Amino acid sequence: MRKLISLGEALAILLRTARNFTVGVERVDFDASLGRVLAEDIRSPSDIPPFDRAAMDGFAVRGEDTFGASPENPVVLRKAGTAGGKEGEGRKEESSEESVSVQAGEYLPIQTGMRMPAGSNAVLMLEYARERSKGELEVFKPVPPGKNVSFKGEDIREGELLLKSGKILNAYDIGVLASISKTSVKVRKRVKVGIIATGDEIFDPKTQAKVEGKIADSNSFVLSALLSSAAEIAEPIRFGIVKDDLGEIKDAVSHALRRCDVLLLTGGSSVGERDFSEAVVKELGGEILFHGVAIRPGEPVGFGIVCEKPVFLLPGFPVATISAFELLVRPFLWEMLGVSYSSDSQTAEQTKRAWLHGRCVVTAVAARKIPSAVGRTDFVRVKLRKTEEGFFAAEPVRVSGSGILSSMTKSDGFVVVEDEKEGIAKGERVLVCLHSF
Amino acid sequence: MRKLISLGEALAILLRTARNFTVGVERVDFDASLGRVLAEDIRSPSDIPPFDRAAMDGFAVRGEDTFGASPENPVVLRKAGTAGGKEGEGRKEESSEESVSVQAGEYLPIQTGMRMPAGSNAVLMLEYARERSKGELEVFKPVPPGKNVSFKGEDIREGELLLKSGKILNAYDIGVLASISKTSVKVRKRVKVGIIATGDEIFDPKTQAKVEGKIADSNSFVLSALLSSAAEIAEPIRFGIVKDDLGEIKDAVSHALRRCDVLLLTGGSSVGERDFSEAVVKELGGEILFHGVAIRPGEPVGFGIVCEKPVFLLPGFPVATISAFELLVRPFLWEMLGVSYSSDSQTAEQTKRAWLHGRCVVTAVAARKIPSAVGRTDFVRVKLRKTEEGFFAAEPVRVSGSGILSSMTKSDGFVVVEDEKEGIAKGERVLVCLHSF
Repeated sequence: MRKLISLGEALAILLRTARNFTVGVERVDFDASLGRVLAEDIRSPSDIPPFDRAAMDGFAVRGEDTFGASPENPVVLRKAGTAGGKEGEGRKEESSEESVSVQAGEYLPIQTGMRMPAGSNAVLMLEYARERSKGELEVFKPVPPGKNVSFKGEDIREGELLLKSGKILNAYDIGVLASISKTSVKVRKRVKVGIIATGDEIFDPKTQAKVEGKIADSNSFVLSALLSSAAEIAEPIRFGIVKDDLGEIKDAVSHALRRCDVLLLTGGSSVGERDFSEAVVKELGGEILFHGVAIRPGEPVGFGIVCEKPVFLLPGFPVATISAFELLVRPFLWEMLGVSYSSDSQTAEQTKRAWLHGRCVVTAVAARKIPSAVGRTDFVRVKLRKTEEGFFAAEPVRVSGSGILSSMTKSDGFVVVEDEKEGIAKGERVLVCLHSF
Repeated sequence: MRKLISLGEALAILLRTARNFTVGVERVDFDASLGRVLAEDIRSPSDIPPFDRAAMDGFAVRGEDTFGASPENPVVLRKAGTAGGKEGEGRKEESSEESVSVQAGEYLPIQTGMRMPAGSNAVLMLEYARERSKGELEVFKPVPPGKNVSFKGEDIREGELLLKSGKILNAYDIGVLASISKTSVKVRKRVKVGIIATGDEIFDPKTQAKVEGKIADSNSFVLSALLSSAAEIAEPIRFGIVKDDLGEIKDAVSHALRRCDVLLLTGGSSVGERDFSEAVVKELGGEILFHGVAIRPGEPVGFGIVCEKPVFLLPGFPVATISAFELLVRPFLWEMLGVSYSSDSQTAEQTKRAWLHGRCVVTAVAARKIPSAVGRTDFVRVKLRKTEEGFFAAEPVRVSGSGILSSMTKSDGFVVVEDEKEGIAKGERVLVCLHSF
């Protein structure tokens, strides 16, 4: 049997290699950048809000003018811009927002979001005052200066770093870009990931009717969907199914490599005589960087460079392919895209591998013992249930082989048992990486 | 001030109303159904695998024939279908997989995924045997019957419920559909959600240059992105910005309601005099079902039915709009789509509201006291950091108003402080709903 390397050694090779395959940059409209990897630092061109504005509907006043006001002893203020409070001065009132300032003893009606008139420093809420018809306001409650005002630069200050290069843009980031009128942004191009499924025993359920004695290919569809659901980082391209024939696989690989940035070859990566994938890499003048990693399932996974492009050799069994994808392919793609890690999370290696690679992680306690072996990393499917204390308990999904795709759909997520651990004890705390949706 | 209803009362009204607006069904290709809500039960048409097959490359044997084998005393087996083990019978060997059975004392080479020959019941691994040139196999280790075989129906049994109606389809579900050759599936149509932003003080950064003294609209872009990132459940349609004018808003609402299933009206839903949204609903012959909910931020949120379509009146401040969206709009949409809840999670009301509504939830401890008031539900943005014990600590992001959009981008998720709670104590356990990506 071939010698296996550890997951850590494999990741070290992958992350080092990924740096030679940094993905290019393109410019897109800000409202089309959701889920993309930002490729520039975004700083604020100005203060936001750009001026002091009302945070409530009410009356712009000088807070100090209202001190001592009560329902019994209301303070009376005079409408600003009206000489003594005469009504009907439409023209002046219209333009009051821009030009009229609030002097001592004066007020102006104001609505949420509007600029505070010069001289005013607080908004008195509607219910604490009553406007008299002749341009006078009875104030029943004092309002301290600064109350109900959103100050200039309170949300964002000019020049402040808003979004860091390498961030995957979420809905709120789109909002920030809108709020600074940043109409287009630089993002990483999406990685074109080719997928070829190999095997005499499989057929394509998308294009072929059921074939007696053969198995429908599911791997290429799962890989394509995993690439589509992890933000907008990749563009999967399925190249269909190729028979277990060295020449045909070689042709398919050459063809695919002309159209994609990274290639995933599934199904031919077992230890048997039909394992053409390594032979294909060599015949095309490529180099194998590793073949065989101590992970379960997914052990036969390999990785090489062919025609100056990264090629993953993934095992044929469905869950083995998924395990190898999550533990090795996803971190590689993230590194190619230069996704940044937040500093706090960098301390936790497992969190970095999992959650930050596009997954959410839940803390749970193991509902049962999860056996593993030192020197091997296990990819364990678990179902979550709520415990009485409000925690989650993680129950491993019973399986009897790595072909069991239904173990994925029955599970809520997976636990990675790292190679220095001899299994997980019942009641031990684990991090569960949740499936998308 | 208007009377506020509790979040629970508002949700009860919403969920009851949503049942009258169940979304229609359409049929899509299985590989285009990622993130859609399944609208039929999927059962397996047959056993998977459809036959017993090899789970390893090696030799198909009858396990009992190998008992007692050792390197010192190898058991010798004869190749099936060869009369006494003569070589070169190419024709017979080619067809052996289909027609030749393994009798007592016989073996056949076999590769992973292939059908087990009749009579065989185990796969002997390559390294435990050596094939002699004359069609004989020396076996060095016994293999128990059943070893290294994937049995018929082991993954999925005929008629078994694979995917339940109401499930949001993930990557593995796509794989299951592929594996049973289910080429198309019934899913809920995507909800067309119209978005209108109102306000004299805002301009559209997508179509207008910066306007001095005005604020760029971000709400309609955030809402659109939130609707896009929560699986494939909605199709947001932005109808641009409308001035604070009753007639203009009325026209815009009538126009939008002809093109969408649900309408979100943002910006006009404050308590002040410019609050045209409720007036618009009434002038169009609609009905307000509630206006004002005890949530913070987002209190002015309202909901009504206009032209027989659901309309949400969302507050103008960015975080208030987001809070009202997450706490009220998202659960409403989920109910319209008939998304099913897993039975275990139904016990935890908060988990149901959050995680199951398209979000991932992390358990964390509060790093600081989070003040709240009984009778009010708080939407608190938090940043997560790892504690020394491997837990997450949730640190509330300091804010001074609901306009602070940057509090969303600086945070990792939000905590919902339910209305019966008088805040959260430092060190108390909380569930953090993570932002997407």
